[in-house]
Amino acid sequence: MTYCLGIITREGLVLAADCRTNAGYDQANVSRKLHPFVIPGQRALVTLTSGSLSCSQSVITLLQRDFAAGRGLAAVDNMYDAARVVGEQVRRVAEQDRASLERDNQQFNVHFILGGQIGHEPAELYLIYPQGNPLRASEDSPYLQIGESKYGRPILDRGVRFDATSLIQAVKYALISLGSTMRSNVAVGPPVDMAVYYANSLQLDHLRRFETEDRDFQRMQDQWDAALRKAVRYLPEVALQRPARGRSRANARRPQA
Amino acid sequence: MTYCLGIITREGLVLAADCRTNAGYDQANVSRKLHPFVIPGQRALVTLTSGSLSCSQSVITLLQRDFAAGRGLAAVDNMYDAARVVGEQVRRVAEQDRASLERDNQQFNVHFILGGQIGHEPAELYLIYPQGNPLRASEDSPYLQIGESKYGRPILDRGVRFDATSLIQAVKYALISLGSTMRSNVAVGPPVDMAVYYANSLQLDHLRRFETEDRDFQRMQDQWDAALRKAVRYLPEVALQRPARGRSRANARRPQA
Repeated sequence: MTYCLGIITREGLVLAADCRTNAGYDQANVSRKLHPFVIPGQRALVTLTSGSLSCSQSVITLLQRDFAAGRGLAAVDNMYDAARVVGEQVRRVAEQDRASLERDNQQFNVHFILGGQIGHEPAELYLIYPQGNPLRASEDSPYLQIGESKYGRPILDRGVRFDATSLIQAVKYALISLGSTMRSNVAVGPPVDMAVYYANSLQLDHLRRFETEDRDFQRMQDQWDAALRKAVRYLPEVALQRPARGRSRANARRPQA
Repeated sequence: MTYCLGIITREGLVLAADCRTNAGYDQANVSRKLHPFVIPGQRALVTLTSGSLSCSQSVITLLQRDFAAGRGLAAVDNMYDAARVVGEQVRRVAEQDRASLERDNQQFNVHFILGGQIGHEPAELYLIYPQGNPLRASEDSPYLQIGESKYGRPILDRGVRFDATSLIQAVKYALISLGSTMRSNVAVGPPVDMAVYYANSLQLDHLRRFETEDRDFQRMQDQWDAALRKAVRYLPEVALQRPARGRSRANARRPQA
Protein backbone atom coordinates (compact mmCIF):
# COMPACT_ATOMS: atom_id res chain seq x y z
CA MET A 1 0.00 0.00 0.00
CA THR A 2 0.96 3.66 -0.27
CA TYR A 3 -0.30 7.05 0.73
CA CYS A 4 0.63 10.12 -1.31
CA LEU A 5 -0.81 13.58 -0.97
CA GLY A 6 -0.56 16.88 -2.80
CA ILE A 7 -1.92 20.16 -1.42
CA ILE A 8 -2.18 23.34 -3.50
CA THR A 9 -2.86 26.75 -2.00
CA ARG A 10 -2.40 30.30 -3.21
CA GLU A 11 1.14 30.20 -1.75
CA GLY A 12 2.26 27.06 -3.55
CA LEU A 13 2.43 23.30 -3.16
CA VAL A 14 3.17 20.64 -0.58
CA LEU A 15 3.73 17.08 -1.83
CA ALA A 16 4.30 14.15 0.49
CA ALA A 17 4.57 10.37 0.29
CA ASP A 18 5.27 7.47 2.56
CA CYS A 19 8.06 5.07 1.54
CA ARG A 20 6.71 1.63 2.37
CA THR A 21 6.14 -0.89 -0.40
CA ASN A 22 4.97 -4.38 0.22
CA ALA A 23 4.37 -7.50 -1.81
CA GLY A 24 2.09 -9.47 0.45
CA TYR A 25 2.23 -9.16 4.23
CA ASP A 26 5.68 -10.65 4.63
CA GLN A 27 7.71 -8.56 2.24
CA ALA A 28 7.97 -4.86 3.06
CA ASN A 29 10.62 -2.52 1.69
CA VAL A 30 11.55 1.13 1.64
CA SER A 31 11.15 2.81 -1.72
CA ARG A 32 11.13 6.45 -2.77
CA LYS A 33 7.81 7.50 -4.28
CA LEU A 34 8.57 11.23 -4.57
CA HIS A 35 10.64 12.25 -7.60
CA PRO A 36 11.67 15.84 -8.43
CA PHE A 37 12.17 17.15 -11.95
CA VAL A 38 13.81 20.55 -11.62
CA ILE A 39 15.55 23.06 -13.90
CA PRO A 40 16.17 25.95 -11.48
CA GLY A 41 14.72 29.23 -12.67
CA GLN A 42 12.79 27.50 -15.43
CA ARG A 43 10.61 24.71 -13.99
CA ALA A 44 10.11 22.72 -10.80
CA LEU A 45 7.95 19.56 -10.88
CA VAL A 46 7.43 16.70 -8.45
CA THR A 47 5.76 13.35 -9.06
CA LEU A 48 4.26 11.00 -6.47
CA THR A 49 3.32 7.43 -7.33
CA SER A 50 1.13 4.63 -6.02
CA GLY A 51 0.35 1.16 -7.31
CA SER A 52 2.63 -1.63 -8.49
CA LEU A 53 6.20 -0.50 -7.80
CA SER A 54 7.41 -2.34 -10.87
CA CYS A 55 5.08 -0.40 -13.16
CA SER A 56 5.47 3.03 -11.53
CA GLN A 57 9.25 2.57 -11.58
CA SER A 58 9.09 1.96 -15.32
CA VAL A 59 7.11 5.17 -15.83
CA ILE A 60 9.58 7.15 -13.70
CA THR A 61 12.52 5.67 -15.61
CA LEU A 62 11.01 6.76 -18.93
CA LEU A 63 10.20 10.23 -17.58
CA GLN A 64 13.72 10.68 -16.17
CA ARG A 65 15.37 9.44 -19.36
CA ASP A 66 13.44 11.97 -21.44
CA PHE A 67 14.01 14.72 -18.88
CA ALA A 68 17.78 14.21 -18.94
CA ALA A 69 17.69 14.49 -22.72
CA GLY A 70 15.71 17.74 -22.60
CA ARG A 71 12.47 16.12 -23.73
CA GLY A 72 9.16 15.41 -22.01
CA LEU A 73 8.86 17.14 -18.62
CA ALA A 74 11.95 19.22 -19.51
CA ALA A 75 10.37 20.53 -22.71
CA VAL A 76 6.65 21.15 -22.16
CA ASP A 77 5.41 24.70 -21.61
CA ASN A 78 2.76 24.28 -18.94
CA MET A 79 1.49 21.90 -16.28
CA TYR A 80 -1.42 20.55 -18.32
CA ASP A 81 0.98 19.38 -21.01
CA ALA A 82 3.27 18.01 -18.28
CA ALA A 83 0.36 15.95 -16.92
CA ARG A 84 -0.26 14.69 -20.47
CA VAL A 85 3.43 13.68 -20.72
CA VAL A 86 3.08 11.61 -17.54
CA GLY A 87 -0.16 10.13 -18.90
CA GLU A 88 1.54 9.16 -22.16
CA GLN A 89 4.26 7.25 -20.32
CA VAL A 90 1.68 5.59 -18.07
CA ARG A 91 -0.12 4.42 -21.23
CA ARG A 92 3.14 3.25 -22.77
CA VAL A 93 3.95 1.05 -19.78
CA ALA A 94 0.33 -0.11 -19.62
CA GLU A 95 0.59 -1.21 -23.24
CA GLN A 96 3.69 -3.26 -22.41
CA ASP A 97 2.55 -4.81 -19.14
CA ARG A 98 -1.22 -4.76 -18.74
CA ALA A 99 -2.07 -7.93 -20.68
CA SER A 100 0.51 -10.04 -18.83
CA LEU A 101 -0.61 -8.70 -15.45
CA GLU A 102 -4.29 -9.31 -16.13
CA ARG A 103 -3.59 -12.84 -17.32
CA ASP A 104 -2.49 -13.50 -13.72
CA ASN A 105 -5.37 -11.53 -12.21
CA GLN A 106 -3.20 -8.56 -11.33
CA GLN A 107 -4.27 -5.00 -12.02
CA PHE A 108 -2.43 -2.25 -13.81
CA ASN A 109 -3.13 0.24 -11.03
CA VAL A 110 -0.48 2.96 -11.30
CA HIS A 111 -1.64 6.40 -10.10
CA PHE A 112 0.44 9.56 -10.28
CA ILE A 113 0.24 12.95 -8.62
CA LEU A 114 2.11 15.73 -10.43
CA GLY A 115 2.62 19.19 -8.95
CA GLY A 116 4.75 22.14 -9.87
CA GLN A 117 5.17 25.14 -12.09
CA ILE A 118 6.73 25.93 -15.48
CA GLY A 119 7.90 29.45 -16.35
CA HIS A 120 5.19 32.09 -16.07
CA GLU A 121 2.33 29.56 -16.22
CA PRO A 122 0.41 28.99 -12.98
CA ALA A 123 1.47 26.37 -10.42
CA GLU A 124 -0.89 23.39 -10.68
CA LEU A 125 -1.55 20.00 -9.16
CA TYR A 126 -2.77 16.96 -11.13
CA LEU A 127 -3.76 13.37 -10.55
CA ILE A 128 -3.04 11.03 -13.48
CA TYR A 129 -5.16 7.88 -13.59
CA PRO A 130 -3.94 4.40 -14.66
CA GLN A 131 -5.70 5.08 -17.97
CA GLY A 132 -3.46 8.12 -18.47
CA ASN A 133 -6.11 10.85 -18.18
CA PRO A 134 -5.38 13.83 -15.91
CA LEU A 135 -7.51 15.51 -13.21
CA ARG A 136 -6.61 18.98 -11.92
CA ALA A 137 -7.04 20.09 -8.31
CA SER A 138 -9.18 23.20 -7.94
CA GLU A 139 -9.70 26.01 -5.46
CA ASP A 140 -12.74 24.11 -4.18
CA SER A 141 -10.85 20.81 -3.86
CA PRO A 142 -7.30 21.98 -3.19
CA TYR A 143 -5.75 18.59 -2.51
CA LEU A 144 -5.35 15.23 -4.23
CA GLN A 145 -4.60 11.83 -2.75
CA ILE A 146 -3.58 8.44 -4.13
CA GLY A 147 -3.29 5.06 -2.41
CA GLU A 148 -4.78 4.60 1.07
CA SER A 149 -6.63 7.90 1.09
CA LYS A 150 -9.50 7.59 3.55
CA TYR A 151 -7.82 7.75 6.96
CA GLY A 152 -5.96 10.93 6.06
CA ARG A 153 -8.83 12.77 4.43
CA PRO A 154 -11.03 14.21 7.24
CA ILE A 155 -8.28 16.51 8.54
CA LEU A 156 -7.78 17.87 5.01
CA ASP A 157 -11.51 18.38 4.44
CA ARG A 158 -11.87 20.22 7.70
CA GLY A 159 -8.72 22.31 7.54
CA VAL A 160 -7.24 22.98 4.10
CA ARG A 161 -8.49 26.04 2.18
CA PHE A 162 -6.92 27.28 -1.05
CA ASP A 163 -7.00 30.93 -0.03
CA ALA A 164 -6.56 30.72 3.72
CA THR A 165 -4.02 27.95 4.35
CA SER A 166 -0.37 28.99 4.37
CA LEU A 167 2.27 26.56 3.13
CA ILE A 168 3.66 26.35 6.66
CA GLN A 169 0.22 25.19 7.81
CA ALA A 170 -0.15 22.91 4.80
CA VAL A 171 3.06 21.11 5.83
CA LYS A 172 1.48 20.39 9.20
CA TYR A 173 -1.78 19.18 7.62
CA ALA A 174 0.19 16.86 5.35
CA LEU A 175 2.15 15.39 8.27
CA ILE A 176 -0.99 14.90 10.37
CA SER A 177 -2.74 13.27 7.42
CA LEU A 178 0.20 10.91 6.85
CA GLY A 179 0.51 10.22 10.56
CA SER A 180 -3.16 9.24 10.82
CA THR A 181 -2.80 6.90 7.85
CA MET A 182 0.39 5.24 9.09
CA ARG A 183 -1.22 4.63 12.45
CA SER A 184 -4.21 2.85 10.93
CA ASN A 185 -2.63 0.92 8.03
CA VAL A 186 0.69 -0.86 8.60
CA ALA A 187 1.19 -1.04 4.82
CA VAL A 188 1.75 2.73 4.90
CA GLY A 189 4.99 3.50 6.72
CA PRO A 190 7.98 5.74 7.28
CA PRO A 191 10.15 7.35 6.15
CA VAL A 192 8.03 10.19 4.76
CA ASP A 193 9.34 12.30 1.86
CA MET A 194 8.11 15.87 1.55
CA ALA A 195 8.63 18.61 -1.02
CA VAL A 196 7.54 22.21 -0.58
CA TYR A 197 7.24 24.60 -3.52
CA TYR A 198 6.55 28.34 -3.22
CA ALA A 199 4.71 29.66 -6.28
CA ASN A 200 6.97 31.48 -8.76
CA SER A 201 10.21 30.33 -7.13
CA LEU A 202 10.86 27.86 -9.97
CA GLN A 203 13.07 25.76 -7.73
CA LEU A 204 12.37 23.10 -5.11
CA ASP A 205 12.23 25.19 -1.95
CA HIS A 206 12.36 22.39 0.57
CA LEU A 207 12.89 18.66 0.36
CA ARG A 208 12.96 16.62 3.51
CA ARG A 209 12.85 12.98 4.52
CA PHE A 210 11.31 12.23 7.92
CA GLU A 211 12.92 8.99 9.11
CA THR A 212 11.21 6.45 11.36
CA GLU A 213 12.49 8.07 14.53
CA ASP A 214 12.37 11.66 13.31
CA ARG A 215 11.89 13.81 16.40
CA ASP A 216 9.98 16.60 14.64
CA PHE A 217 7.53 14.09 13.19
CA GLN A 218 7.08 12.22 16.48
CA ARG A 219 6.67 15.44 18.43
CA MET A 220 4.09 16.69 15.98
CA GLN A 221 2.02 13.49 16.28
CA ASP A 222 2.23 13.57 20.09
CA GLN A 223 1.33 17.23 20.31
CA TRP A 224 -1.47 16.70 17.84
CA ASP A 225 -2.95 13.89 19.95
CA ALA A 226 -2.81 16.14 23.01
CA ALA A 227 -4.29 19.11 21.10
CA LEU A 228 -7.18 16.99 19.80
CA ARG A 229 -8.05 15.66 23.22
CA LYS A 230 -7.96 19.19 24.61
CA ALA A 231 -10.12 20.47 21.75
CA VAL A 232 -12.69 17.72 22.43
CA ARG A 233 -12.81 18.68 26.10
CA TYR A 234 -13.58 22.28 25.14
CA LEU A 235 -16.36 21.36 22.72
CA PRO A 236 -19.81 22.08 24.14
CA GLU A 237 -21.51 19.13 25.79
CA VAL A 238 -24.39 17.56 23.92
CA ALA A 239 -27.72 17.59 25.64
CA LEU A 240 -28.91 14.01 25.91
CA GLN A 241 -32.38 13.04 26.97
CA ARG A 242 -33.59 9.94 28.67
CA PRO A 243 -35.21 7.66 26.10
CA ALA A 244 -38.83 8.47 25.40
CA ARG A 245 -41.13 6.33 27.54
CA GLY A 246 -43.04 4.91 24.61
CA ARG A 247 -40.01 3.57 22.83
CA SER A 248 -38.46 2.28 26.03
CA ARG A 249 -41.56 0.34 26.91
CA ALA A 250 -41.84 -1.22 23.47
CA ASN A 251 -38.66 -3.15 24.01
CA ALA A 252 -38.92 -3.44 27.74
CA ARG A 253 -41.32 -6.30 28.22
CA ARG A 254 -40.43 -8.57 31.08
CA PRO A 255 -39.52 -11.99 29.83
CA GLN A 256 -42.29 -14.45 30.47
CA ALA A 257 -41.64 -17.19 32.96
CA MET B 1 -23.35 2.31 2.84
CA THR B 2 -23.48 2.70 6.61
CA TYR B 3 -21.30 3.81 9.46
CA CYS B 4 -21.87 2.42 12.95
CA LEU B 5 -19.61 2.84 15.94
CA GLY B 6 -19.43 1.50 19.47
CA ILE B 7 -17.11 2.92 22.15
CA ILE B 8 -16.51 1.24 25.50
CA THR B 9 -14.79 2.96 28.40
CA ARG B 10 -14.61 2.30 32.12
CA GLU B 11 -17.70 4.50 32.50
CA GLY B 12 -19.84 2.64 30.01
CA LEU B 13 -20.83 2.60 26.34
CA VAL B 14 -21.68 4.95 23.49
CA LEU B 15 -23.30 3.45 20.39
CA ALA B 16 -24.07 5.47 17.29
CA ALA B 17 -25.24 4.87 13.73
CA ASP B 18 -26.15 6.88 10.68
CA CYS B 19 -29.57 6.23 9.12
CA ARG B 20 -28.94 6.30 5.38
CA THR B 21 -29.52 3.22 3.31
CA ASN B 22 -29.12 3.12 -0.40
CA ALA B 23 -29.68 0.64 -3.19
CA GLY B 24 -27.54 2.11 -5.93
CA TYR B 25 -26.86 5.83 -6.21
CA ASP B 26 -30.42 6.80 -7.03
CA GLN B 27 -32.30 5.18 -4.20
CA ALA B 28 -31.53 6.48 -0.72
CA ASN B 29 -33.76 6.03 2.29
CA VAL B 30 -33.80 6.63 6.02
CA SER B 31 -33.68 3.51 8.12
CA ARG B 32 -33.01 2.92 11.80
CA LYS B 33 -29.88 0.83 12.39
CA LEU B 34 -29.81 1.18 16.18
CA HIS B 35 -32.10 -1.16 18.11
CA PRO B 36 -32.41 -1.32 21.92
CA PHE B 37 -33.26 -4.46 23.88
CA VAL B 38 -33.94 -3.36 27.45
CA ILE B 39 -35.44 -4.87 30.59
CA PRO B 40 -34.89 -2.06 33.10
CA GLY B 41 -32.95 -3.13 36.18
CA GLN B 42 -32.05 -6.44 34.56
CA ARG B 43 -30.39 -5.87 31.18
CA ALA B 44 -29.74 -3.14 28.61
CA LEU B 45 -28.46 -4.07 25.16
CA VAL B 46 -28.18 -2.19 21.90
CA THR B 47 -27.49 -3.55 18.41
CA LEU B 48 -26.11 -1.66 15.40
CA THR B 49 -26.21 -3.13 11.90
CA SER B 50 -24.54 -2.69 8.54
CA GLY B 51 -24.87 -4.51 5.24
CA SER B 52 -27.93 -5.50 3.24
CA LEU B 53 -30.92 -3.90 4.94
CA SER B 54 -33.12 -6.82 3.94
CA CYS B 55 -30.86 -9.32 5.71
CA SER B 56 -30.09 -7.25 8.81
CA GLN B 57 -33.82 -6.50 9.16
CA SER B 58 -34.54 -10.23 9.17
CA VAL B 59 -32.00 -10.79 11.94
CA ILE B 60 -33.47 -7.92 14.00
CA THR B 61 -36.98 -9.29 13.51
CA LEU B 62 -35.93 -12.72 14.80
CA LEU B 63 -34.07 -11.17 17.76
CA GLN B 64 -37.05 -8.96 18.67
CA ARG B 65 -39.52 -11.82 18.36
CA ASP B 66 -37.50 -13.97 20.75
CA PHE B 67 -36.90 -11.03 23.08
CA ALA B 68 -40.60 -10.29 23.36
CA ALA B 69 -41.17 -13.96 24.24
CA GLY B 70 -38.49 -13.89 26.96
CA ARG B 71 -36.02 -15.91 24.94
CA GLY B 72 -32.69 -15.07 23.27
CA LEU B 73 -31.38 -11.65 24.33
CA ALA B 74 -34.00 -11.58 27.11
CA ALA B 75 -32.80 -14.86 28.59
CA VAL B 76 -28.99 -15.10 28.32
CA ASP B 77 -26.86 -14.43 31.42
CA ASN B 78 -23.94 -12.48 30.01
CA MET B 79 -22.79 -10.46 26.98
CA TYR B 80 -20.74 -13.26 25.45
CA ASP B 81 -23.80 -15.46 25.25
CA ALA B 82 -25.78 -12.48 23.94
CA ALA B 83 -23.24 -12.06 21.14
CA ARG B 84 -23.64 -15.77 20.39
CA VAL B 85 -27.43 -15.32 20.21
CA VAL B 86 -26.97 -12.57 17.60
CA GLY B 87 -24.49 -14.78 15.74
CA GLU B 88 -26.97 -17.67 15.70
CA GLN B 89 -29.65 -15.52 14.11
CA VAL B 90 -27.16 -14.13 11.62
CA ARG B 91 -26.34 -17.73 10.64
CA ARG B 92 -30.01 -18.62 10.45
CA VAL B 93 -30.72 -15.80 7.98
CA ALA B 94 -27.52 -16.61 6.09
CA GLU B 95 -28.74 -20.18 5.70
CA GLN B 96 -32.01 -18.94 4.23
CA ASP B 97 -30.67 -16.22 1.94
CA ARG B 98 -26.98 -16.68 1.13
CA ALA B 99 -27.31 -19.12 -1.77
CA SER B 100 -29.91 -16.99 -3.58
CA LEU B 101 -27.88 -13.84 -3.09
CA GLU B 102 -24.66 -15.39 -4.32
CA ARG B 103 -26.39 -16.80 -7.37
CA ASP B 104 -26.91 -13.15 -8.40
CA ASN B 105 -23.39 -12.11 -7.34
CA GLN B 106 -24.57 -10.41 -4.18
CA GLN B 107 -22.84 -10.89 -0.85
CA PHE B 108 -24.28 -11.86 2.50
CA ASN B 109 -22.49 -9.04 4.29
CA VAL B 110 -24.41 -8.36 7.50
CA HIS B 111 -22.28 -7.05 10.37
CA PHE B 112 -23.56 -6.37 13.87
CA ILE B 113 -22.25 -4.42 16.83
CA LEU B 114 -23.71 -5.41 20.19
CA GLY B 115 -23.09 -3.46 23.38
CA GLY B 116 -24.59 -3.52 26.83
CA GLN B 117 -24.71 -5.20 30.18
CA ILE B 118 -26.64 -8.03 31.83
CA GLY B 119 -27.09 -8.21 35.61
CA HIS B 120 -23.83 -8.21 37.56
CA GLU B 121 -21.75 -9.29 34.55
CA PRO B 122 -19.44 -6.66 33.06
CA ALA B 123 -20.59 -4.27 30.32
CA GLU B 124 -19.11 -5.42 27.01
CA LEU B 125 -18.97 -4.50 23.35
CA TYR B 126 -18.93 -7.03 20.49
CA LEU B 127 -18.72 -7.14 16.73
CA ILE B 128 -20.51 -10.09 15.10
CA TYR B 129 -19.26 -11.04 11.65
CA PRO B 130 -21.44 -12.21 8.73
CA GLN B 131 -20.24 -15.73 9.57
CA GLY B 132 -21.74 -15.37 13.07
CA ASN B 133 -18.52 -15.35 15.10
CA PRO B 134 -18.09 -12.62 17.73
CA LEU B 135 -15.15 -10.28 18.46
CA ARG B 136 -14.93 -8.43 21.79
CA ALA B 137 -13.56 -4.88 22.16
CA SER B 138 -10.74 -4.65 24.68
CA GLU B 139 -9.11 -2.03 26.87
CA ASP B 140 -6.41 -1.69 24.20
CA SER B 141 -8.92 -1.35 21.37
CA PRO B 142 -11.91 0.24 23.08
CA TYR B 143 -14.04 0.84 20.02
CA LEU B 144 -15.54 -1.14 17.14
CA GLN B 145 -16.76 0.06 13.77
CA ILE B 146 -18.80 -1.46 10.94
CA GLY B 147 -19.51 -0.14 7.45
CA GLU B 148 -17.54 2.83 6.13
CA SER B 149 -15.00 2.82 8.95
CA LYS B 150 -11.86 4.52 7.65
CA TYR B 151 -12.75 8.22 7.58
CA GLY B 152 -13.95 8.16 11.16
CA ARG B 153 -11.13 6.14 12.64
CA PRO B 154 -8.16 8.53 13.12
CA ILE B 155 -10.00 10.69 15.66
CA LEU B 156 -10.83 7.55 17.67
CA ASP B 157 -7.27 6.22 17.51
CA ARG B 158 -5.87 9.52 18.67
CA GLY B 159 -8.41 10.32 21.35
CA VAL B 160 -10.32 7.42 22.87
CA ARG B 161 -8.79 5.66 25.88
CA PHE B 162 -10.62 3.03 27.93
CA ASP B 163 -9.47 4.43 31.27
CA ALA B 164 -9.22 8.14 30.51
CA THR B 165 -12.17 8.97 28.26
CA SER B 166 -15.39 9.94 30.01
CA LEU B 167 -18.72 9.04 28.41
CA ILE B 168 -19.41 12.75 27.89
CA GLN B 169 -16.19 12.96 25.88
CA ALA B 170 -16.95 9.67 24.11
CA VAL B 171 -20.24 11.17 22.86
CA LYS B 172 -18.24 14.00 21.26
CA TYR B 173 -15.73 11.59 19.70
CA ALA B 174 -18.58 9.57 18.24
CA LEU B 175 -20.24 12.65 16.73
CA ILE B 176 -16.95 13.92 15.27
CA SER B 177 -16.23 10.47 13.84
CA LEU B 178 -19.69 10.30 12.26
CA GLY B 179 -19.42 13.88 11.04
CA SER B 180 -16.10 13.17 9.29
CA THR B 181 -17.56 10.11 7.62
CA MET B 182 -20.75 11.83 6.45
CA ARG B 183 -18.69 14.65 4.97
CA SER B 184 -16.57 12.26 2.89
CA ASN B 185 -19.08 9.60 1.87
CA VAL B 186 -22.55 10.69 0.72
CA ALA B 187 -23.81 7.13 1.28
CA VAL B 188 -23.46 7.77 5.03
CA GLY B 189 -25.98 10.37 6.12
CA PRO B 190 -28.24 11.85 8.78
CA PRO B 191 -30.13 11.43 10.95
CA VAL B 192 -27.73 9.94 13.51
CA ASP B 193 -29.03 7.70 16.29
CA MET B 194 -27.09 7.56 19.53
CA ALA B 195 -27.44 5.50 22.71
CA VAL B 196 -25.47 6.12 25.92
CA TYR B 197 -25.18 3.50 28.64
CA TYR B 198 -23.59 4.08 32.04
CA ALA B 199 -22.10 0.88 33.47
CA ASN B 200 -24.29 -0.81 36.10
CA SER B 201 -27.34 1.35 35.38
CA LEU B 202 -29.10 -1.55 33.61
CA GLN B 203 -31.25 0.86 31.64
CA LEU B 204 -30.71 2.94 28.51
CA ASP B 205 -29.48 6.21 29.97
CA HIS B 206 -29.80 8.33 26.85
CA LEU B 207 -31.22 7.81 23.41
CA ARG B 208 -31.16 10.65 20.91
CA ARG B 209 -31.72 11.15 17.21
CA PHE B 210 -29.76 14.00 15.62
CA GLU B 211 -31.82 15.12 12.61
CA THR B 212 -30.34 16.62 9.45
CA GLU B 213 -30.56 20.16 10.72
CA ASP B 214 -29.85 19.38 14.36
CA ARG B 215 -28.31 22.51 15.83
CA ASP B 216 -26.18 20.71 18.42
CA PHE B 217 -24.70 18.47 15.76
CA GLN B 218 -24.06 21.32 13.30
CA ARG B 219 -22.55 23.51 16.00
CA MET B 220 -20.26 20.70 17.10
CA GLN B 221 -18.99 20.13 13.54
CA ASP B 222 -18.43 23.86 13.01
CA GLN B 223 -16.67 24.32 16.32
CA TRP B 224 -14.61 21.24 15.67
CA ASP B 225 -13.43 22.61 12.31
CA ALA B 226 -12.43 25.86 13.99
CA ALA B 227 -10.73 24.05 16.89
CA LEU B 228 -8.71 21.88 14.48
CA ARG B 229 -7.50 24.84 12.45
CA LYS B 230 -6.50 26.62 15.65
CA ALA B 231 -4.71 23.50 16.94
CA VAL B 232 -2.76 23.23 13.67
CA ARG B 233 -1.69 26.88 13.96
CA TYR B 234 -0.33 26.21 17.46
CA LEU B 235 1.63 23.12 16.43
CA PRO B 236 5.38 23.79 16.23
CA GLU B 237 6.65 24.62 12.77
CA VAL B 238 8.66 21.93 11.03
CA ALA B 239 12.23 22.83 10.14
CA LEU B 240 12.59 22.38 6.39
CA GLN B 241 15.91 22.48 4.62
CA ARG B 242 16.72 23.47 1.09
CA PRO B 243 17.23 20.32 -0.97
CA ALA B 244 20.73 18.87 -0.75
CA ARG B 245 22.87 20.16 -3.63
CA GLY B 246 23.77 16.69 -4.89
CA ARG B 247 20.19 15.53 -5.30
CA SER B 248 19.04 18.82 -6.73
CA ARG B 249 21.74 18.73 -9.37
CA ALA B 250 20.96 15.16 -10.38
CA ASN B 251 17.57 16.22 -11.71
CA ALA B 252 18.57 19.74 -12.66
CA ARG B 253 20.32 19.30 -15.97
CA ARG B 254 19.53 21.99 -18.49
CA PRO B 255 17.66 20.56 -21.41
CA GLN B 256 19.87 20.24 -24.43
CA ALA B 257 19.18 22.48 -27.38
